[in-house]
Formats: sequence, structure tokens, C-alpha cells
Amino acid sequence: MKKKHLNFIGILLILLSITSVAKAEVSAETAYIFNTFSFLIHGILVMLMAAGFAMLEAGMVRTKNTAAICLKNIALYSIGGLMFYLIGYALMYPGEFNGILGIGDIFYDPLESEIAGEPNVEDGYSKPSDWFFQMVFAATAISIVSGAVAERVKVIPFLLFAAIMTAIIYPIYGSWTWGGGFLAEFGFSDFAGSTIVHSVGGWAALVGCLVIGARKGKYNQDGSVNALPGANLPLSTLGTFLLWFGWFGFNGGSQLALGSAADAAQMSIVYVNTNLAAAAGVMASIILAQIIYKKIDLTLALNGALAGLVAITAGPDVGSHFVAIVVGAIGGILSTLAIPLLDRFKIDDVVGAIPVHLVGGIWGTLAVAIFGGGSFIAQLYGIMMAGVLTVPLAFLAFCLLKYTVGLRVSETTEDSGVDMPELGLQAYPEFKH
Amino acid sequence: MKKKHLNFIGILLILLSITSVAKAEVSAETAYIFNTFSFLIHGILVMLMAAGFAMLEAGMVRTKNTAAICLKNIALYSIGGLMFYLIGYALMYPGEFNGILGIGDIFYDPLESEIAGEPNVEDGYSKPSDWFFQMVFAATAISIVSGAVAERVKVIPFLLFAAIMTAIIYPIYGSWTWGGGFLAEFGFSDFAGSTIVHSVGGWAALVGCLVIGARKGKYNQDGSVNALPGANLPLSTLGTFLLWFGWFGFNGGSQLALGSAADAAQMSIVYVNTNLAAAAGVMASIILAQIIYKKIDLTLALNGALAGLVAITAGPDVGSHFVAIVVGAIGGILSTLAIPLLDRFKIDDVVGAIPVHLVGGIWGTLAVAIFGGGSFIAQLYGIMMAGVLTVPLAFLAFCLLKYTVGLRVSETTEDSGVDMPELGLQAYPEFKH
Amino acid sequence: MKKKHLNFIGILLILLSITSVAKAEVSAETAYIFNTFSFLIHGILVMLMAAGFAMLEAGMVRTKNTAAICLKNIALYSIGGLMFYLIGYALMYPGEFNGILGIGDIFYDPLESEIAGEPNVEDGYSKPSDWFFQMVFAATAISIVSGAVAERVKVIPFLLFAAIMTAIIYPIYGSWTWGGGFLAEFGFSDFAGSTIVHSVGGWAALVGCLVIGARKGKYNQDGSVNALPGANLPLSTLGTFLLWFGWFGFNGGSQLALGSAADAAQMSIVYVNTNLAAAAGVMASIILAQIIYKKIDLTLALNGALAGLVAITAGPDVGSHFVAIVVGAIGGILSTLAIPLLDRFKIDDVVGAIPVHLVGGIWGTLAVAIFGGGSFIAQLYGIMMAGVLTVPLAFLAFCLLKYTVGLRVSETTEDSGVDMPELGLQAYPEFKH
Repeated sequence: MKKKHLNFIGILLILLSITSVAKAEVSAETAYIFNTFSFLIHGILVMLMAAGFAMLEAGMVRTKNTAAICLKNIALYSIGGLMFYLIGYALMYPGEFNGILGIGDIFYDPLESEIAGEPNVEDGYSKPSDWFFQMVFAATAISIVSGAVAERVKVIPFLLFAAIMTAIIYPIYGSWTWGGGFLAEFGFSDFAGSTIVHSVGGWAALVGCLVIGARKGKYNQDGSVNALPGANLPLSTLGTFLLWFGWFGFNGGSQLALGSAADAAQMSIVYVNTNLAAAAGVMASIILAQIIYKKIDLTLALNGALAGLVAITAGPDVGSHFVAIVVGAIGGILSTLAIPLLDRFKIDDVVGAIPVHLVGGIWGTLAVAIFGGGSFIAQLYGIMMAGVLTVPLAFLAFCLLKYTVGLRVSETTEDSGVDMPELGLQAYPEFKH
Repeated sequence: MKKKHLNFIGILLILLSITSVAKAEVSAETAYIFNTFSFLIHGILVMLMAAGFAMLEAGMVRTKNTAAICLKNIALYSIGGLMFYLIGYALMYPGEFNGILGIGDIFYDPLESEIAGEPNVEDGYSKPSDWFFQMVFAATAISIVSGAVAERVKVIPFLLFAAIMTAIIYPIYGSWTWGGGFLAEFGFSDFAGSTIVHSVGGWAALVGCLVIGARKGKYNQDGSVNALPGANLPLSTLGTFLLWFGWFGFNGGSQLALGSAADAAQMSIVYVNTNLAAAAGVMASIILAQIIYKKIDLTLALNGALAGLVAITAGPDVGSHFVAIVVGAIGGILSTLAIPLLDRFKIDDVVGAIPVHLVGGIWGTLAVAIFGGGSFIAQLYGIMMAGVLTVPLAFLAFCLLKYTVGLRVSETTEDSGVDMPELGLQAYPEFKH
Repeated sequence: MKKKHLNFIGILLILLSITSVAKAEVSAETAYIFNTFSFLIHGILVMLMAAGFAMLEAGMVRTKNTAAICLKNIALYSIGGLMFYLIGYALMYPGEFNGILGIGDIFYDPLESEIAGEPNVEDGYSKPSDWFFQMVFAATAISIVSGAVAERVKVIPFLLFAAIMTAIIYPIYGSWTWGGGFLAEFGFSDFAGSTIVHSVGGWAALVGCLVIGARKGKYNQDGSVNALPGANLPLSTLGTFLLWFGWFGFNGGSQLALGSAADAAQMSIVYVNTNLAAAAGVMASIILAQIIYKKIDLTLALNGALAGLVAITAGPDVGSHFVAIVVGAIGGILSTLAIPLLDRFKIDDVVGAIPVHLVGGIWGTLAVAIFGGGSFIAQLYGIMMAGVLTVPLAFLAFCLLKYTVGLRVSETTEDSGVDMPELGLQAYPEFKH
């Protein structure tokens, strides 16, 4: 009896410990809600980056091309969402779909159980919330291209390229990495996409600039460069702030979970490191510009913020805040130095997308190995493969467009600006300019 | 003894199952926090839609009326909040108040228990968080009117109308539906307010345009139309992006709960459908404009996004993403087609509020019956009653203002712009225009 | 046996009650996640206030100084983050650090356990999330100064002052209050920083204006004042809306917890009161301006919103919504009345930072005692000590800069605008002005 009694006490104690575990831990359903809400809230922050890119670019082009860049930005975000629904997601995460290729397998749709309000809590998060978060990343990749090729690309061909980018190019590289493909298995590490989003976008921007060519009047015969200053720098400043704000969703949400204290703690580190890297990018660019050009250039400062953000994106979780500052500062320095380099090769990138996203992205991805202890080889391999995939595919796509519908506006249109001939309106019809 | 022993084991097993339920489920207090936080976060997203409307409209009016539209937008959001506090909420949700009409019953105030930090967890959410979420919807309804009647309405009479709208008109219709009134009982279904917010706002805008009349110089004697293009389209683009961003709060928050996995899963579907409908609205408008006008019109694309958003608002929870795309695309098409129709009747809607909010809202409300399997009759009845309530009340209010304080600025003021005579300042004093 | 049996039942009942407690309550880890997520989300809302200040100020200066104000705003937010990391946080919260002064103790860094993903749930929240939330407050304090001294301050000296402000001045006053210092012990109560952030920033702005002097052409010999109107009021409107939006983070996040229903309920009251105070500030300013100047001044309305927000910041948790309306309205009235008063003393505050943040902050801090029942003496003492600390330190810093690197641009630069000489670019190069 005594023994039995003890047995009971023992069972009770076990039970008690389970109960107190229940008090201390996060229930599976609570974690499901946290994870889902994190995808949604961080997803809309990334969505707002589309507005950030739109304003950044609208401020950096000339008035005569401003309406076109606005249209391109809202259209590319729309196309990105639709293409990722129609094709992209299935290509990037093939494991999420069953059966052979067919309409039913390509189109992404929510689970019946989720529509019915009976989700499977064991999934850990709602599938549509994850889809939403993945979709806004695809849209970001094409946002990067938009500014680089501005002021001379035809609107419709650009939008066709946006469709190709978000339906095929970005998802294929994504499938190699976040989709669990060979680069993931090789040990390539890219927390929120310095390479996967930003370098892929940056490579496509570079190819676009090469295929389309520089704007009329940008480069002189003697190799000297004419500044073609942006028309509305407060808008570019706003755009940069919106991008910075949205980046907390980009990097913070890439923790991919919020259902445990460990996730919340690491997400906090990601937020702080993201902010410090951007701040360091700004200050490094300002100081470097002061040294080189004896001026505090506003556009360099804005791009410094973005380069710092791109650079920290591959490893905002690595930990030390001091390292984040170093990574961001070097990002700002490299992007500042890359601008005259591009000009030397007559690569006319209107907003500095290549210095920021390609150069910053490569640096940030390498920095993970340098400061985070990952494999340098794996990082280099991943960086290389982004170029190996994106450059020929983007080249093919741009050339296909060039020799069919045409890629570049006529000289007359370029002189008058894209807005009136292609859109039939002006961005600032009343302002004399 | 053996039996007793088994009894104990049985009790222990029951207990264990309760414990594991505790581990799997969301506690009542955790659900309370989730529900409350959802109201707050989604509420501020809707609040930011006030900024979106302000920028959309500021970009679509001419420079000489830009400061007035800015003032009207910040003032109407303020008035909306104050009126909904003083009167609107009590009218819309009479069940939340006790006693006969009197100051104490009209003014909305938090519960003593909530102020004291001892909320009743059984309520499921904090009352002020719900009030906040309801208030921003009232403000949205009047935001819709503001742009339509721009450039010729006097500022103070418009603000008086804003008070009437948020204190009386919107809350009465809201009481019939979300307040649990006869339309709710009839089976009328409007998830986040295609009709309740957007059509009601759209009807008021239509009445306003009719009572006030078209702008000088908009329509010629021969029936032809003069474009009076907006002065700053990047601002309109920004405004549209802010509205799109805020709409995740509008529709996502209208799930009204986040305290269970089922709610989180359905909220995710709402987010995805909201985004896809907007994207489809953009693309449908772009393609249609290309077909009709041989131009990719930026303002039509922006309104296409908004029409897609308005259209999906009645049923973003219905489920299939494909349906959301169809609903949004048709919204974009209808709003694009409605613009020349309004011009034929010389209804001068400066920003296209009627095509977007009234036409898009009616379509979206019907679409719930078409795709979601609800009652077509109930939907039609709700749509009709929105007009039956709003049109005479708005007409009465506008006429009352017209024949007392006056509703329309003088011809001289209209020529010179509203800004200098009414505000004593210019929006862009240095820019030549 | 019977008794034992009862004992078992008794234990089971206790256990059952614990279990149901587990079902009703928030687990420690769930609370940790809520608290952390609240710091992060509310923190980024405050971060966006930097964009709000940038737009507010960019719209209120003249075109020739717009790029400089944009640069100052993105740089000061960057400097704020870096300085708070390097020095500020350690000064403000000395208890969070061990050992004697030294590099290791000053630099703020996440805990090893948090990097390792093994946070201590007992902490209640992740330390970096709290740091992030504190950091954005430091940045806000210097944002306030930026607009006041615009259009004649040199860029680099201003940025040096920003470093001093966020590294030393703000953190010292913060340590006296939120850091648990003598003002906290004295009973000084300032929920989210009417005095701690806004008055401290306002005092520094006042000192800056006095040391630097008024803009050329602002005041005539006979004491009359020339309006130097802002160049882009839609941007200022946007900035105000962004500040209002971000203020929900500023005040809402200052609840400092979201891990219980009580916290969620009080946070809701904070949101509602914040919104109503701002709305009342707008309407009070509009009505007062109509009475005094017979005009509805847009910039006064915008500043009325901000003054209402600053005023409610000290006590948004006090409870009654009606009180919040009164506090906000008086804030709007006082800030409107303070503007001509400053002009009488030839204190040239470009954006009205002193009326809004200093006057509004003092009023709001006193209002806590008036309406919330706190100690009037303690509030007065705290208000006074903000001046006693900030005025001499800011004076010292500004004078140090004035007599070394110089604080004010040359007359030629002031005439031509700061943008070309200091930044080498123009904000709106194509717009004729």
C-alpha cells in the first residue's frame, strides 16, 4: 500500500511537472498563431518596400520619366504576386505540391482545411501566411531591376521581364537554396537573401543595363560622365526610410518563427543588427564621400543605408552588434566605391542598384563566413551560382524582348521622356522644368 | 482496492488529457491578448489609410488646391475620431450602452475595470481596442468623399459634412449590419465593408458631386471633357501603396479575432486574397486601358488597385485565391469603364472615388453571393439599403450646408484655387506653375 | 484508507486547479514572446517617426535647403543608433552593465544566451528588443532639434551635436527618470516621454536657435516678421501622418509589456487616448487659427496634431478618453499661441519644434498631475530638471562647435541655400523656383 501510495505520488509529481511545463511553455496552437502572425506582419512590411523602391526611384529619375517609373513599380509588384501564384511558388518549393506538372499543381491555393477554419496546428503556421511572405520576396527581386534600367526601357517589355523574373529566374535560384536544393545541402547560408534576393536582382539589373545600354548623354566621347540628377530627392529620402522600415520585415520575418522565446530573442538580435548595419552604412558613405568628393552627398548616404541593409541580410542573426556595424560600414564603403567603377565601364545604373544590391549582396554573403564561422567555399559557391543562373537567363530574356517587341524607347521618346509617349501623361504637369 | 486504484488511474488520465489540452490550446488570456493586439495593429494600418487618401488626393488635384486637400484630410480624420467618440459608436452599437439617451450614454469610454488594469478576460478582447478599430473605419468612409468633391468645395462646410457622416450616416448603416440590425439578420454578408464603408462613402461622394456640380472648365458646351490633370503623380502612387498596405489592416483585422489557429489561418487567406485582388485590379486596368486608350494610364492603374481592393473587401475570406484574382480583375475593369460613364453625366469626381468605391463596392458585395454561395437577394438588399439610407441623408446634409453656410467657393476662388483665399498659403509656393 | 483516499482527491483537485490556471493564464514563455514582439513592432513604428520628421521638415524648409534637411535626418537617425550603442545606453541604464568603465562595459551587446538561442524566459523579454525600443527614443530626441535650426546650420557641426545629444544629454536625463534615478524616486511620472524625450529635445532646440540666431530676412528692424514659407506642404502633411502613425508605437510600446490581459487592455486605452488627443489638437488649432487669423492654417493644423500627441505622451494611460481630448486640445492651443510669442523674442524655429515639443511637453507633464492625481510638485521638479540639465549642456556643446568648427553657414551659403555648397546637389534640380 505504501508503495502504491508512493506510486501515486510519483505519478502526481510527473503530472505536476507536465502541468508546470504547460504553464511555462508555449502551446502548439499559440505558437501557430505567433508564427503565422509573424509571417503576415513581416510580410506587409516587405510589401511596403515596393512603395519604398517606387519613391526612391521616382526621386532619382528626371521629371519626364517619373510617371513611367511609378507605373512600373506598382505593376511589377502586381505581376510579381500573380506570377508567384501562377508558377513561381511551385518552382521554388516543389515539395509543397503533389502530382505531375499541371494546372492544379502549379497554381498555389490554400488547403481546404484552412479555408474551413480547421487548420492543422501541427503544421506550425498557416500555409498562406508563408506563401505571402515568400511572394513579397519575389517582388523585391524585380523591384531591384526597375530602377537600374529606368529612363530608356519601354514599359511593356520591362513588365514582361518582371513576369519572367518572378515566375522563373528568382524561383529557380530560390529552389536551390531556400527550397532545400543543392546549394542548401552544400552548406550555403543566406539568412534573408543577400544573395538569393539582392544579388539575383543585382545580376539581372547588370544584364539589363548592358543589353539596353546607357542613357543618351550620360557618357561623353572622351569617357567623362555627365550627371543626370534625380528630380525629387525628398521622395528618394522617403523611399530609403520606407525600405529601411520594411527591412525589419525582410530580415526579422526571415527568422521564420516567433513561437518560442528562442525565436523571439533571435528575432530581436536580427532587428538590432539590421538597424545598426544600416546606420553604419550611412555614416561610412558620408565619411567616404567627404574624403573623396569633399561633399556630403545625399544620394550616396541613402545608398549607403541600403548597402548596409543588403550586406547584413545574409547574416543578421550571427550575433554581435559590433560585427553588424562592421558589415554595414563595409557595405556602405563598397557601394560608394563601386559607382565610379561602373561609370568607367559605361554601365549606366540610374539609381545605383548594382552597387547596392549586387556588390552589397556579395559582400554580405561572404561576411557570414568571415564573421559567422560558416564555410567560405560554400558562400562563394552560392554567390557564383547566382550569377551562373541569373546572367544567362536574364540575358536570354532581355535579348528575346529586344529582338521581338523591342526593349528600348526611340531616341525621340528618350529625349521627350517616356511619360508622354507611353503613358500619355506627365508626373508634374504644372511644374515648369 | 484494485478498483479504486483503477479509478485513480482513470482520474489521472482525465487530468492528463486536460493538461495536454492546456498544452495544445490557447489560454483564454492569451487569446484576449492576441485579439486585442490584432485590433490595435490592424487599426493603425487603417489609420495610415488616412495618409494614403491624403497623398492620393494631393497628387490628383491641381497645385492651387493642394494645401486645402491636405488640410481636409487631416481634419476629417480628426473629426471622424471625435464624432465617433461623441455619437457614432453609440448609434452603431447601441447594445454596448445602457440607459436612456444622455451624455453619459453617448460618450464612449473605457470600462473602469480596464482602466484599473483588471480587464474581464471573458470579454475576449479589450473594448477600447475594438472601439479603435471601429473608429478608423468611420474615418475611412468620409475619406472617400473628400477627393470626389475636391477643388470647388468650401473647406468648413466639407468638414461639417464630415462630422455628419461619421456621427450619423455611417453609424446608422453600420448599426443595420455590423451592429446586428435587420440587414445582419436578413443574411447580408459584408466581411470588411465593400458596401458598409466603401459604397456608403461612394454614395455620399456621388451626392456631393451632384449637389456641388462639376469644376469650372471640366465639361464643354458640346459635351466634350477637358482633362484637369493632377499635379503630383508620385504622391498619388505613394498614396495608393499606403492604401494597399493599410488594407491588410482593413481586411485582415476584420477577421475580428486572432486567438485561435483557425482565426490565424483565415486571416492569412484574407491577406493573400486581398493582395491578389489588388494585383489583378492593377493588371486588368492596365490591359484594358491599353486596349481602349492605347496608353498605359498611371492613374487608371492606381485606381485599378483600389477597385480590386474594394471589390475583395466584402469576401476576402471566401477561400480560393483564383476567385480573389477574378473578383479583383473585374473590379479593376468596372472602375475603368465607369469613369467615362460618369463623364457622360457630367459627374465630376476628381479622384475617381465613385468608380472605385461605389462601383467596386457593389460588385464586391455581389461577388460574395456569386462565388461564396451566399444569398444574392440578401446582398442586393444590403446594397440597395446603403443607397436608400445614404442618398437622402447625404442630400439633405449637403443641401442644408449649401443653403446656409454655402457649399461651393466663389468663381474667383475656384479660378485662383482654394488654397490662398481659404488657407492663406500655397502648397508649393516656390515652384513656378 | 478513506482519509488517504480523500487526500488523493484533494491533491487531484489542487492539481486540477493548477491545470485550469494553466488554461486561463499566459505562460511565462508566451508572455516573453508578447513582450518582446511589442518592443520590436512598436520600436519600428517609432523608427518610422524619423521618416515623419524628415518629411515634415523637408516640406517646411525652402527648396534650396531641402536636400540638407533630408541628409541631416537620415544621418541623425544613424548617429543616434550608433551613439546609443557606443555610450548612451550604458549611461541611461547603468544597472544593466557590470564592472568599472571600460570598452567592454560601455558597448551594449546581446547576452550570450540570447545569441545561442537559449534566452532566460524569466527576464520577461529579450534584452535586444528593449534596447531597440530605447534606441529609437534617443533618435527621436535629436530629430526634434533638426527642424528648429534648419536653413542656416552647417551640416557636419549639427551631426556632431546629434552625437552629443544621443550619447550624453538625453541618456543622462533618461537615467534620472526611466533609468531609475532620483527623479523616478521623487515620484516624477512621464509615461512615454513628454518631458524625457520631447521637452529635452525642445530645450536643445531652443538653445540651438538662440546660439545660432535667426535666419537672414526672417525679422525686420522694426520687429515685424517675414514669412518664409515651406516649399512642399504635402510632404509636411505626410510627415505629420507618419509621426501620428509612429506615435502609436511611441506611446503604445511604452506600456513596456503585452504579456497579460491587463497590459493589453491598458495598451488599448493608450492607443485610443493618443489618437483622440491628436485629433483634438488638430481641431483646437484649426478653430483657434480661424478665430485669430481668420484662416484655417494647414501648418498650424499639422503642428496641432503633434502638440496634441506630445501633450498626451506623459499620461496616455490615465484613463478617461474625455480627459485625453482636453489634454490634446489644450496642447494644440498652447502650441498655436506660442508661435507668435517666439517671434516676439526673434527665436526663429523653422518648423515650430519649440511650441510643439517644449511647450506641449511641459503642458502634458503637468496634465498628469492635474488629471491623473499625481504629485504636481514632482512633475514640476522633473520639468525643471530637464531644463537645468539640457540648457547648459546644449549651450556648452553648441558654443564649443560654434567656436571651433563653426556652427552657422556663411551669408553667401545662406543666400544660395545650404544644398549646393555643402552637398553639391539640389533637391529639385529641374523645378524652376
